[in-house]
Amino acid sequence: MIRELIVKTRSIRRFKEDERLDEIVLRELIDLARLGGSARNSQPLRYMMVTDRQLGARIFPHLGWAGYLTDWPGPAEGERPPAYVICLLDRRCCKGPEGEALIDLGIATQNLLLGAAERNIHGCRIGSFSPAVSGLLQIDGSRYKLLLVIALGRAAEEVVLEEAGPDGDIRYWRDRRQVHHVPKRALADIIIAPGSRSTD
Amino acid sequence: MIRELIVKTRSIRRFKEDERLDEIVLRELIDLARLGGSARNSQPLRYMMVTDRQLGARIFPHLGWAGYLTDWPGPAEGERPPAYVICLLDRRCCKGPEGEALIDLGIATQNLLLGAAERNIHGCRIGSFSPAVSGLLQIDGSRYKLLLVIALGRAAEEVVLEEAGPDGDIRYWRDRRQVHHVPKRALADIIIAPGSRSTD
Repeated sequence: MIRELIVKTRSIRRFKEDERLDEIVLRELIDLARLGGSARNSQPLRYMMVTDRQLGARIFPHLGWAGYLTDWPGPAEGERPPAYVICLLDRRCCKGPEGEALIDLGIATQNLLLGAAERNIHGCRIGSFSPAVSGLLQIDGSRYKLLLVIALGRAAEEVVLEEAGPDGDIRYWRDRRQVHHVPKRALADIIIAPGSRSTD
Repeated sequence: MIRELIVKTRSIRRFKEDERLDEIVLRELIDLARLGGSARNSQPLRYMMVTDRQLGARIFPHLGWAGYLTDWPGPAEGERPPAYVICLLDRRCCKGPEGEALIDLGIATQNLLLGAAERNIHGCRIGSFSPAVSGLLQIDGSRYKLLLVIALGRAAEEVVLEEAGPDGDIRYWRDRRQVHHVPKRALADIIIAPGSRSTD
Protein backbone atom coordinates (compact mmCIF):
# COMPACT_ATOMS: atom_id res chain seq x y z
CA MET A 1 0.00 0.00 0.00
CA ILE A 2 1.33 3.41 -0.99
CA ARG A 3 -0.06 4.88 2.23
CA GLU A 4 2.50 3.08 4.36
CA LEU A 5 5.35 4.28 2.17
CA ILE A 6 4.02 7.85 2.26
CA VAL A 7 3.90 7.74 6.06
CA LYS A 8 7.43 6.34 6.12
CA THR A 9 8.70 9.15 3.85
CA ARG A 10 9.54 11.71 6.52
CA SER A 11 12.17 14.44 6.58
CA ILE A 12 15.28 13.19 8.35
CA ARG A 13 18.03 15.55 9.50
CA ARG A 14 20.44 13.24 11.36
CA PHE A 15 22.15 10.52 9.39
CA LYS A 16 24.57 7.65 9.73
CA GLU A 17 27.32 9.61 8.07
CA ASP A 18 29.63 6.66 7.59
CA GLU A 19 27.04 4.61 5.69
CA ARG A 20 27.91 6.06 2.32
CA LEU A 21 25.48 5.98 -0.60
CA ASP A 22 26.39 4.70 -4.00
CA GLU A 23 25.81 6.79 -7.11
CA ILE A 24 24.07 3.80 -8.67
CA VAL A 25 21.32 4.14 -6.06
CA LEU A 26 21.10 7.90 -6.48
CA ARG A 27 20.77 7.38 -10.20
CA GLU A 28 17.83 5.02 -9.65
CA LEU A 29 16.18 7.62 -7.44
CA ILE A 30 16.70 10.42 -9.96
CA ASP A 31 15.14 8.13 -12.54
CA LEU A 32 11.99 8.04 -10.38
CA ALA A 33 12.07 11.84 -10.25
CA ARG A 34 12.36 11.85 -14.04
CA LEU A 35 9.18 9.79 -14.42
CA GLY A 36 6.94 12.28 -12.67
CA GLY A 37 4.48 14.44 -14.54
CA SER A 38 5.60 17.86 -15.71
CA ALA A 39 3.63 20.97 -16.64
CA ARG A 40 3.55 21.28 -20.46
CA ASN A 41 5.73 18.16 -20.25
CA SER A 42 8.65 20.58 -20.38
CA GLN A 43 10.77 18.63 -17.83
CA PRO A 44 13.00 21.55 -16.88
CA LEU A 45 14.61 19.93 -13.82
CA ARG A 46 18.23 18.75 -13.72
CA TYR A 47 20.12 16.93 -11.00
CA MET A 48 23.61 16.72 -9.57
CA MET A 49 24.77 13.90 -7.32
CA VAL A 50 27.21 14.61 -4.52
CA THR A 51 28.70 11.58 -2.81
CA ASP A 52 32.26 12.81 -2.45
CA ARG A 53 33.06 13.31 1.24
CA GLN A 54 35.16 16.43 0.76
CA LEU A 55 32.70 18.16 -1.54
CA GLY A 56 29.84 17.30 0.82
CA ALA A 57 31.79 18.72 3.75
CA ARG A 58 32.27 21.98 1.90
CA ILE A 59 28.57 22.26 1.03
CA PHE A 60 27.36 21.45 4.53
CA PRO A 61 28.12 24.78 6.31
CA HIS A 62 26.02 26.65 3.74
CA LEU A 63 22.76 24.79 4.49
CA GLY A 64 19.96 25.84 6.85
CA TRP A 65 18.52 22.91 8.77
CA ALA A 66 15.50 23.18 11.04
CA GLY A 67 14.01 26.61 11.54
CA TYR A 68 11.88 25.73 14.56
CA LEU A 69 14.72 24.04 16.49
CA THR A 70 16.37 27.30 17.37
CA ASP A 71 18.95 25.78 19.72
CA TRP A 72 20.01 23.08 17.26
CA PRO A 73 22.51 24.25 14.63
CA GLY A 74 22.18 21.17 12.44
CA PRO A 75 23.59 17.64 12.46
CA ALA A 76 26.84 17.13 14.34
CA GLU A 77 29.89 15.43 12.88
CA GLY A 78 29.09 11.79 12.34
CA GLU A 79 25.39 12.64 11.71
CA ARG A 80 25.85 14.64 8.55
CA PRO A 81 24.41 13.51 5.23
CA PRO A 82 26.59 11.11 3.25
CA ALA A 83 25.08 12.32 -0.01
CA TYR A 84 23.15 15.12 -1.66
CA VAL A 85 21.02 15.42 -4.74
CA ILE A 86 21.06 18.98 -6.04
CA CYS A 87 17.95 20.07 -7.98
CA LEU A 88 18.39 22.66 -10.68
CA LEU A 89 16.11 24.47 -13.08
CA ASP A 90 17.33 24.51 -16.67
CA ARG A 91 16.00 27.89 -17.76
CA ARG A 92 16.29 26.92 -21.42
CA CYS A 93 13.63 24.24 -20.95
CA CYS A 94 11.20 26.19 -18.80
CA LYS A 95 8.23 26.89 -21.04
CA GLY A 96 5.85 28.42 -18.54
CA PRO A 97 6.10 30.53 -15.38
CA GLU A 98 8.68 29.37 -12.85
CA GLY A 99 5.91 28.38 -10.42
CA GLU A 100 5.15 25.44 -12.72
CA ALA A 101 8.70 24.20 -12.28
CA LEU A 102 8.22 24.34 -8.51
CA ILE A 103 5.16 22.09 -8.73
CA ASP A 104 7.26 19.77 -10.92
CA LEU A 105 9.95 19.92 -8.23
CA GLY A 106 7.51 18.76 -5.57
CA ILE A 107 6.34 15.89 -7.78
CA ALA A 108 9.84 14.82 -8.75
CA THR A 109 11.34 14.98 -5.27
CA GLN A 110 8.40 13.13 -3.78
CA ASN A 111 8.97 10.32 -6.27
CA LEU A 112 12.65 10.37 -5.35
CA LEU A 113 12.06 10.31 -1.60
CA LEU A 114 9.38 7.61 -1.82
CA GLY A 115 11.84 5.48 -3.75
CA ALA A 116 14.48 6.25 -1.14
CA ALA A 117 12.18 5.28 1.75
CA GLU A 118 11.48 2.01 -0.02
CA ARG A 119 15.24 1.40 0.17
CA ASN A 120 15.39 2.57 3.82
CA ILE A 121 17.11 5.76 2.77
CA HIS A 122 15.71 9.05 3.97
CA GLY A 123 16.25 12.64 3.14
CA CYS A 124 15.50 16.25 3.80
CA ARG A 125 14.54 18.90 1.28
CA ILE A 126 16.60 21.99 2.06
CA GLY A 127 15.40 25.23 0.55
CA SER A 128 17.59 27.40 2.75
CA PHE A 129 21.16 27.63 1.46
CA SER A 130 23.66 30.35 0.70
CA PRO A 131 24.68 31.29 -2.85
CA ALA A 132 28.08 29.76 -2.04
CA VAL A 133 26.62 26.33 -2.83
CA SER A 134 26.24 27.29 -6.50
CA GLY A 135 29.86 28.38 -6.50
CA LEU A 136 31.12 25.15 -4.92
CA LEU A 137 29.27 23.13 -7.54
CA GLN A 138 30.40 25.51 -10.30
CA ILE A 139 26.86 25.87 -11.53
CA ASP A 140 26.48 27.94 -14.68
CA GLY A 141 24.11 30.56 -13.34
CA SER A 142 23.25 31.87 -16.78
CA ARG A 143 21.59 28.57 -17.58
CA TYR A 144 20.76 26.86 -14.30
CA LYS A 145 19.09 28.00 -11.11
CA LEU A 146 19.67 26.07 -7.89
CA LEU A 147 16.21 25.26 -6.53
CA LEU A 148 16.70 22.70 -3.78
CA VAL A 149 19.31 20.61 -2.00
CA ILE A 150 18.21 17.16 -0.87
CA ALA A 151 20.29 15.61 1.90
CA LEU A 152 20.19 11.81 1.78
CA GLY A 153 21.36 8.92 3.92
CA ARG A 154 20.42 6.26 6.44
CA ALA A 155 18.38 7.74 9.28
CA ALA A 156 19.97 8.22 12.69
CA GLU A 157 16.82 9.67 14.23
CA GLU A 158 13.19 8.75 14.75
CA VAL A 159 10.36 10.90 13.41
CA VAL A 160 6.72 10.53 14.44
CA LEU A 161 3.61 12.15 13.04
CA GLU A 162 0.98 13.42 15.42
CA GLU A 163 -2.21 15.42 15.06
CA ALA A 164 -1.94 19.17 15.52
CA GLY A 165 -3.67 20.35 18.69
CA PRO A 166 -6.66 22.70 18.86
CA ASP A 167 -4.31 25.70 19.02
CA GLY A 168 -3.19 24.86 15.49
CA ASP A 169 0.50 24.95 16.39
CA ILE A 170 2.30 23.03 13.65
CA ARG A 171 5.92 23.64 14.73
CA TYR A 172 7.83 20.38 14.85
CA TRP A 173 9.63 19.68 18.13
CA ARG A 174 11.92 17.16 19.82
CA ASP A 175 11.21 15.33 23.04
CA ARG A 176 13.75 14.41 25.73
CA ARG A 177 14.76 11.30 23.86
CA GLN A 178 15.41 13.51 20.81
CA VAL A 179 12.52 11.95 18.91
CA HIS A 180 11.32 14.43 16.28
CA HIS A 181 7.54 15.13 16.39
CA VAL A 182 5.66 16.54 13.38
CA PRO A 183 2.14 17.86 14.04
CA LYS A 184 -0.13 17.39 11.03
CA ARG A 185 -3.40 19.23 10.53
CA ALA A 186 -6.43 16.94 10.77
CA LEU A 187 -8.16 15.84 7.58
CA ALA A 188 -11.36 17.61 8.63
CA ASP A 189 -9.42 20.87 8.90
CA ILE A 190 -8.09 20.81 5.34
CA ILE A 191 -11.27 19.84 3.45
CA ILE A 192 -13.58 22.71 2.58
CA ALA A 193 -17.08 22.26 1.19
CA PRO A 194 -17.74 23.97 -2.15
CA GLY A 195 -19.88 26.99 -1.41
CA SER A 196 -21.64 26.79 -4.77
CA ARG A 197 -25.26 25.75 -4.81
CA SER A 198 -25.69 22.90 -7.26
CA THR A 199 -29.32 23.58 -8.05
CA ASP A 200 -29.34 27.16 -9.26
CA MET B 1 7.73 -1.51 -6.09
CA ILE B 2 7.03 2.19 -6.13
CA ARG B 3 8.56 2.46 -9.61
CA GLU B 4 5.67 0.57 -11.21
CA LEU B 5 3.13 2.80 -9.51
CA ILE B 6 5.03 5.93 -10.55
CA VAL B 7 5.04 4.74 -14.17
CA LYS B 8 1.32 3.99 -13.92
CA THR B 9 0.59 7.48 -12.55
CA ARG B 10 0.11 9.30 -15.85
CA SER B 11 -2.04 12.30 -16.73
CA ILE B 12 -5.34 11.13 -18.15
CA ARG B 13 -7.68 13.49 -19.98
CA ARG B 14 -10.49 11.19 -21.19
CA PHE B 15 -12.58 9.45 -18.56
CA LYS B 16 -15.45 7.04 -18.14
CA GLU B 17 -17.80 9.81 -17.17
CA ASP B 18 -20.55 7.52 -15.93
CA GLU B 19 -18.31 5.70 -13.49
CA ARG B 20 -18.82 8.14 -10.68
CA LEU B 21 -16.35 8.47 -7.81
CA ASP B 22 -17.40 8.37 -4.20
CA GLU B 23 -16.41 11.12 -1.80
CA ILE B 24 -15.15 8.44 0.58
CA VAL B 25 -12.45 7.58 -1.95
CA LEU B 26 -11.60 11.23 -2.59
CA ARG B 27 -11.27 11.73 1.13
CA GLU B 28 -8.78 8.85 1.34
CA LEU B 29 -6.77 10.43 -1.48
CA ILE B 30 -6.77 13.85 0.16
CA ASP B 31 -5.54 12.15 3.31
CA LEU B 32 -2.50 10.95 1.33
CA ALA B 33 -1.96 14.53 0.15
CA ARG B 34 -2.16 15.63 3.78
CA LEU B 35 0.64 13.26 4.80
CA GLY B 36 3.24 14.77 2.46
CA GLY B 37 6.06 16.93 3.72
CA SER B 38 5.55 20.68 3.86
CA ALA B 39 8.03 23.56 3.95
CA ARG B 40 8.26 24.89 7.52
CA ASN B 41 5.57 22.24 8.15
CA SER B 42 3.10 25.06 7.51
CA GLN B 43 0.63 22.84 5.59
CA PRO B 44 -1.10 25.71 3.80
CA LEU B 45 -3.04 23.58 1.28
CA ARG B 46 -6.80 23.03 1.43
CA TYR B 47 -9.02 20.86 -0.74
CA MET B 48 -12.54 20.86 -2.13
CA MET B 49 -14.20 17.74 -3.53
CA VAL B 50 -16.56 18.05 -6.47
CA THR B 51 -18.57 14.93 -7.30
CA ASP B 52 -21.88 16.60 -8.09
CA ARG B 53 -22.67 16.17 -11.77
CA GLN B 54 -24.22 19.60 -12.23
CA LEU B 55 -21.46 21.48 -10.45
CA GLY B 56 -18.83 19.53 -12.41
CA ALA B 57 -20.59 20.40 -15.66
CA ARG B 58 -20.48 24.07 -14.81
CA ILE B 59 -16.78 23.98 -13.96
CA PHE B 60 -15.79 22.01 -17.06
CA PRO B 61 -16.03 24.80 -19.71
CA HIS B 62 -13.58 26.92 -17.73
CA LEU B 63 -10.70 24.42 -17.86
CA GLY B 64 -7.82 24.28 -20.35
CA TRP B 65 -6.92 20.73 -21.33
CA ALA B 66 -3.96 19.87 -23.53
CA GLY B 67 -1.96 22.72 -24.93
CA TYR B 68 -0.06 20.70 -27.53
CA LEU B 69 -3.18 19.03 -28.98
CA THR B 70 -4.30 22.13 -30.77
CA ASP B 71 -7.14 20.47 -32.65
CA TRP B 72 -8.59 18.79 -29.57
CA PRO B 73 -10.79 21.04 -27.43
CA GLY B 74 -10.89 18.67 -24.45
CA PRO B 75 -12.89 15.58 -23.53
CA ALA B 76 -16.24 15.10 -25.26
CA GLU B 77 -19.49 14.38 -23.47
CA GLY B 78 -19.26 10.96 -21.92
CA GLU B 79 -15.48 11.35 -21.47
CA ARG B 80 -15.53 14.20 -18.99
CA PRO B 81 -14.21 13.81 -15.46
CA PRO B 82 -16.71 12.45 -12.95
CA ALA B 83 -14.93 14.26 -10.11
CA TYR B 84 -12.55 17.04 -9.27
CA VAL B 85 -10.31 17.84 -6.34
CA ILE B 86 -9.72 21.58 -6.08
CA CYS B 87 -6.45 22.63 -4.45
CA LEU B 88 -6.39 25.92 -2.59
CA LEU B 89 -3.79 27.92 -0.74
CA ASP B 90 -4.90 29.17 2.67
CA ARG B 91 -3.03 32.46 2.81
CA ARG B 92 -3.37 32.60 6.60
CA CYS B 93 -1.20 29.49 6.94
CA CYS B 94 1.46 30.35 4.39
CA LYS B 95 4.57 31.13 6.43
CA GLY B 96 7.13 31.50 3.65
CA PRO B 97 7.15 32.64 0.02
CA GLU B 98 4.35 31.27 -2.15
CA GLY B 99 6.85 29.19 -4.13
CA GLU B 100 7.19 26.92 -1.10
CA ALA B 101 3.47 26.22 -1.25
CA LEU B 102 3.87 25.23 -4.91
CA ILE B 103 6.51 22.64 -3.99
CA ASP B 104 4.12 21.41 -1.30
CA LEU B 105 1.44 21.26 -3.99
CA GLY B 106 3.58 19.00 -6.16
CA ILE B 107 4.32 16.72 -3.22
CA ALA B 108 0.71 16.55 -2.07
CA THR B 109 -0.82 15.99 -5.48
CA GLN B 110 1.74 13.32 -6.33
CA ASN B 111 0.77 11.45 -3.17
CA LEU B 112 -2.87 11.86 -4.16
CA LEU B 113 -2.38 10.65 -7.72
CA LEU B 114 -0.19 7.71 -6.71
CA GLY B 115 -2.92 6.64 -4.31
CA ALA B 116 -5.46 7.08 -7.09
CA ALA B 117 -3.43 4.98 -9.54
CA GLU B 118 -3.22 2.25 -6.90
CA ARG B 119 -7.05 2.25 -7.00
CA ASN B 120 -7.09 2.37 -10.83
CA ILE B 121 -8.22 5.96 -10.77
CA HIS B 122 -6.34 8.51 -12.80
CA GLY B 123 -6.26 12.22 -13.03
CA CYS B 124 -4.94 15.34 -14.64
CA ARG B 125 -3.51 18.39 -12.94
CA ILE B 126 -5.05 21.43 -14.61
CA GLY B 127 -3.29 24.72 -14.03
CA SER B 128 -5.13 26.51 -16.81
CA PHE B 129 -8.58 27.68 -15.69
CA SER B 130 -10.59 30.87 -15.79
CA PRO B 131 -11.34 32.92 -12.66
CA ALA B 132 -14.96 31.83 -13.10
CA VAL B 133 -14.08 28.56 -11.34
CA SER B 134 -13.46 30.42 -8.08
CA GLY B 135 -16.83 32.05 -8.48
CA LEU B 136 -18.66 28.77 -9.12
CA LEU B 137 -17.11 27.29 -6.00
CA GLN B 138 -17.76 30.49 -4.03
CA ILE B 139 -14.18 30.58 -2.87
CA ASP B 140 -13.41 33.36 -0.41
CA GLY B 141 -10.67 35.08 -2.36
CA SER B 142 -9.53 37.14 0.59
CA ARG B 143 -8.41 33.95 2.33
CA TYR B 144 -7.94 31.29 -0.35
CA LYS B 145 -6.18 31.20 -3.69
CA LEU B 146 -7.15 28.58 -6.25
CA LEU B 147 -3.91 26.86 -7.27
CA LEU B 148 -4.87 23.75 -9.19
CA VAL B 149 -7.84 21.71 -10.38
CA ILE B 150 -7.35 17.94 -10.47
CA ALA B 151 -9.73 16.04 -12.74
CA LEU B 152 -10.25 12.46 -11.57
CA GLY B 153 -11.92 9.32 -12.85
CA ARG B 154 -11.50 5.96 -14.50
CA ALA B 155 -9.32 6.21 -17.60
CA ALA B 156 -10.88 5.99 -21.04
CA GLU B 157 -7.57 6.41 -22.85
CA GLU B 158 -4.16 4.82 -23.02
CA VAL B 159 -0.98 6.75 -22.26
CA VAL B 160 2.52 5.52 -23.06
CA LEU B 161 5.89 6.92 -22.08
CA GLU B 162 8.63 7.03 -24.67
CA GLU B 163 12.10 8.49 -24.81
CA ALA B 164 12.45 11.95 -26.30
CA GLY B 165 14.27 11.90 -29.61
CA PRO B 166 17.60 13.59 -30.38
CA ASP B 167 15.78 16.77 -31.42
CA GLY B 168 14.62 17.13 -27.81
CA ASP B 169 10.98 17.59 -28.80
CA ILE B 170 8.96 16.84 -25.67
CA ARG B 171 5.47 17.70 -26.97
CA TYR B 172 3.04 14.89 -26.22
CA TRP B 173 1.06 13.61 -29.20
CA ARG B 174 -1.64 11.14 -30.20
CA ASP B 175 -1.33 8.40 -32.75
CA ARG B 176 -4.03 7.19 -35.12
CA ARG B 177 -5.50 4.92 -32.49
CA GLN B 178 -5.70 7.98 -30.21
CA VAL B 179 -3.06 6.55 -27.89
CA HIS B 180 -1.42 9.44 -26.02
CA HIS B 181 2.41 9.46 -26.23
CA VAL B 182 4.57 11.33 -23.70
CA PRO B 183 8.26 11.81 -24.60
CA LYS B 184 10.49 11.82 -21.53
CA ARG B 185 14.03 13.16 -21.48
CA ALA B 186 16.62 10.43 -21.01
CA LEU B 187 18.23 10.00 -17.61
CA ALA B 188 21.64 10.85 -19.02
CA ASP B 189 20.26 14.18 -20.23
CA ILE B 190 19.04 15.34 -16.83
CA ILE B 191 22.06 14.42 -14.68
CA ILE B 192 24.84 17.00 -14.59
CA ALA B 193 28.25 16.39 -13.05
CA PRO B 194 29.27 18.83 -10.31
CA GLY B 195 31.89 21.10 -11.81
CA SER B 196 33.61 21.62 -8.48
CA ARG B 197 37.07 20.15 -8.00
CA SER B 198 37.04 18.02 -4.89
CA THR B 199 40.73 18.36 -4.15
CA ASP B 200 41.35 22.09 -3.96
